[in-house]
Amino acid sequence: MLEIVDHGGGVRELRLARPPVNALDPVLVADLRAAVERAESAGVRALVLSGGPRVFSGGLDVPALLALDRPAMEAFLADLLELLRALATSPVPVIAAVTGHSPAGGAVLAIQCDYRVMAEGDFRIGLNEVAVGLPLPRVIHSALVRLVGPGTAARLAVSGALVGGAEALRIGLVDELTAPEQVVGRALQIARDLLALPPRALSATRQMVRADLAAAFDREQQVTWRAFVDDWFAPETQEAMRALVARLQQKR
Amino acid sequence: MLEIVDHGGGVRELRLARPPVNALDPVLVADLRAAVERAESAGVRALVLSGGPRVFSGGLDVPALLALDRPAMEAFLADLLELLRALATSPVPVIAAVTGHSPAGGAVLAIQCDYRVMAEGDFRIGLNEVAVGLPLPRVIHSALVRLVGPGTAARLAVSGALVGGAEALRIGLVDELTAPEQVVGRALQIARDLLALPPRALSATRQMVRADLAAAFDREQQVTWRAFVDDWFAPETQEAMRALVARLQQKR
Amino acid sequence: MLEIVDHGGGVRELRLARPPVNALDPVLVADLRAAVERAESAGVRALVLSGGPRVFSGGLDVPALLALDRPAMEAFLADLLELLRALATSPVPVIAAVTGHSPAGGAVLAIQCDYRVMAEGDFRIGLNEVAVGLPLPRVIHSALVRLVGPGTAARLAVSGALVGGAEALRIGLVDELTAPEQVVGRALQIARDLLALPPRALSATRQMVRADLAAAFDREQQVTWRAFVDDWFAPETQEAMRALVARLQQKR
Repeated sequence: MLEIVDHGGGVRELRLARPPVNALDPVLVADLRAAVERAESAGVRALVLSGGPRVFSGGLDVPALLALDRPAMEAFLADLLELLRALATSPVPVIAAVTGHSPAGGAVLAIQCDYRVMAEGDFRIGLNEVAVGLPLPRVIHSALVRLVGPGTAARLAVSGALVGGAEALRIGLVDELTAPEQVVGRALQIARDLLALPPRALSATRQMVRADLAAAFDREQQVTWRAFVDDWFAPETQEAMRALVARLQQKR
Repeated sequence: MLEIVDHGGGVRELRLARPPVNALDPVLVADLRAAVERAESAGVRALVLSGGPRVFSGGLDVPALLALDRPAMEAFLADLLELLRALATSPVPVIAAVTGHSPAGGAVLAIQCDYRVMAEGDFRIGLNEVAVGLPLPRVIHSALVRLVGPGTAARLAVSGALVGGAEALRIGLVDELTAPEQVVGRALQIARDLLALPPRALSATRQMVRADLAAAFDREQQVTWRAFVDDWFAPETQEAMRALVARLQQKR
Repeated sequence: MLEIVDHGGGVRELRLARPPVNALDPVLVADLRAAVERAESAGVRALVLSGGPRVFSGGLDVPALLALDRPAMEAFLADLLELLRALATSPVPVIAAVTGHSPAGGAVLAIQCDYRVMAEGDFRIGLNEVAVGLPLPRVIHSALVRLVGPGTAARLAVSGALVGGAEALRIGLVDELTAPEQVVGRALQIARDLLALPPRALSATRQMVRADLAAAFDREQQVTWRAFVDDWFAPETQEAMRALVARLQQKR
């Protein structure tokens, strides 16, 4: 589900590998959380979070999650938020290699990272939670505002828009575009470039410039979790999710 | 002065129709405020705020307003700020169809809305209050910062710049450009697209992402009103306004 | 070191003139601070801060500063921060004429100003403090966030990137590009345009839109100074600085 590749020099790639679309289920989230949380103590100095060709991550595995009862879903969402916090507060830099489509949960992972390289081509990224009946969770909104500003964040969140790479670059949702086959290589290079900097200056500066993101988790993680659970089991959301699953099944 | 057009599906257009330039006088402001405040209880689910060909709104009707004594001007400015608050806190989405020029008060209306579609072509938008001797009112500055960030807001506010559509799009002052004859149609389509989303998720997300704008009115509406009244009757402002009116009369 | 040129109409140019790269040493910083602080009482109504052909300012004069003991460096950094505060809180507008390269301290001066015109061509600007072993000072980070937003500021600060003019314009680090030989002229024109506006409206609006920058200095100047001194004398920083000086000497 999660391939761990050490590229030397302290750079470790965490590659989402759960076909067909790297959907986030309880096992993948737990694995990824553990891999991020344990990186520094394992001697890792920078992480690259990558996906597969054409899809970075399709977001939450809705069909699997709809089968969970409330206690199981509560545990999953707590784990998911801990994963996001681990990315947001990682003591080592995390570069997102957005190798392809990155809707909803895919974008949610990417926006916690230090840097986002996205594949050129017909790929889309965005926070389309509203489109599947889920209000955008608060702490995710805060991370989005930090990257694109409150006005653009409002527009994206309300419309549930999925935008192409050029638009994502223009509004600051990603930092760089490159050819699909070069996304991981470029992310590795960015990680290596950071590690060539004086480490104390890098670490102190990272801590300062990411303090707003860490503070958002301190302030909002619990309230986000409670609302997320309630929203998930709201009738409108359940209905929209089941309609989504039906559409996915018809597609096959 | 204000044409109300119901387009079906709960989408209502509020069309400024006070020739020649949709200047904001006490009657138009009162009518528009009432139309926005009463929309939801009238069953409206989304609003489109539009202007006329070539001009969205030329801003305050300075010649008419200069004739008002202080109590009348105090009442007008209170009403204007209530109109802006009604737009900023509207329970239903409001799409601005910026059909043409949108200086000063025209831009002030547009930046409270959820989304701005502007006409392509030689049209300009901006907060040029300083150019007519009026310090930019505080709560309007807050709404501007929300869209374009504090650095760009400072530059626009201080210089009183009116910018073209391409620049407005680049800095986030508007969200989209389209051909003049398609602006209203596109705004209606955006409204319909929003109404196709799950309504509870849409409403909860709108409330969250627009809470900063609502908070700005809670915090700053009263202090803005007091300063606005004092500024309006300051000698420098009165002189600049009278010079503006003289220029407008020479133009005819 | 600092040429003062009065261009008429209350517009004064402060031209950095310390060859070869306008490096900031104690004398230049003291002169510039005095020139900014005394401008208004000398009847100046707007300032243009310019550099030389090809270089606006190369930043701190590291070779000279490495020779200072701790008390002398403490005094220099206090003076530098007072210079930045003087620019950030100047009662008259300050237009930066970024005539060429503007790394580190050069960019630090520019981002405190009201407006930045940068020379087109192969010139770079950025906050590359981390690359020479210095964590980005806090109050400088706050000024940067104000212009480019927290996400872009994080990316720039952490990577120590120096960006070209087109990228600087895209992200809001500068406001305008023009041909190198026209940068000062354009900055003078912007100053004159501001002075043609009603002065009370201009002054009140400037004070409002720059209050966030002034507040950052109130809140963070002292803590920035203390950390700046400690960081300067940290072994990693001293080593990186000495390596930089060695590279500069090899270049000659």
